[in-house]
Amino acid sequence: MNFEALRSYLEETFRTKIPITRAMGIRVRHYDGTNLVLGAPLEPNVNDKGTAFGGSLFSLLVLAGWGLIHLKLKEEEIPGDIMIHESSINYSLPVTEHWEAHCRLPESPAYAHFLELLRARGRARLTLEASIMVGSRVAVSFQGSYAVVRKQC
Amino acid sequence: MNFEALRSYLEETFRTKIPITRAMGIRVRHYDGTNLVLGAPLEPNVNDKGTAFGGSLFSLLVLAGWGLIHLKLKEEEIPGDIMIHESSINYSLPVTEHWEAHCRLPESPAYAHFLELLRARGRARLTLEASIMVGSRVAVSFQGSYAVVRKQC
Repeated sequence: MNFEALRSYLEETFRTKIPITRAMGIRVRHYDGTNLVLGAPLEPNVNDKGTAFGGSLFSLLVLAGWGLIHLKLKEEEIPGDIMIHESSINYSLPVTEHWEAHCRLPESPAYAHFLELLRARGRARLTLEASIMVGSRVAVSFQGSYAVVRKQC
Repeated sequence: MNFEALRSYLEETFRTKIPITRAMGIRVRHYDGTNLVLGAPLEPNVNDKGTAFGGSLFSLLVLAGWGLIHLKLKEEEIPGDIMIHESSINYSLPVTEHWEAHCRLPESPAYAHFLELLRARGRARLTLEASIMVGSRVAVSFQGSYAVVRKQC
């Protein structure tokens, strides 16, 4: 699969496997093998102040990390369950229109070690960072630790 | 307003001001002036593993804290905007049916100090803990710091 096909595949995975993403209007905007970008409209995710609801922002960020691992495992042909284990989030600026969550694969040693453990022991953890920008400023920053368990086929 | 009226009022606030709560099926199950309990069904919030999506669990927990402060400010007759500022969450067990988020007001000194600051300076922060139980075990634990700004009437 090329990157465009993987982008469509992930969007379909969200729509069919995590149905609340349909109500939130989550779309997969970009994937290049290292960076994943998800977007969502304000309207279904608005809060009482007319800005994006903190729970929806968290959902977009946690899915950016989950989706990035999901696509990397597909490329590596390792079937696995991915579960968020713990995370922290910091909201610095209100978010209104045009919001996107950006998640980037960590530098090679951390990711290579994760793959090695997953292949050797059938389970491993990976910590990812993701953020939502407003212009050039970080509006929301997220860190999540994901546990991955290889599926027996 | 008595507790039952406040419970209904909060449910209506969620439905009208934070519309994604309708898609999630969030209900206000209990309020007694100190404890707030929110619930949601699994079906609209399910993930690829047939358990509750981590983003929906976060949303329920962050709203339990937000809702508790919202009701306390109403009782104190202080109009204010409540914003989540930072939070952390730990997922220990998968959550399936009958999930509820419990949030309890902290002991009096912390809450009294928060109210005092809010009245004196027009802004204050309050840290709340909330959790989701599976039987007698904590499945998800959440801590959130909320910033409150008094509205000028």
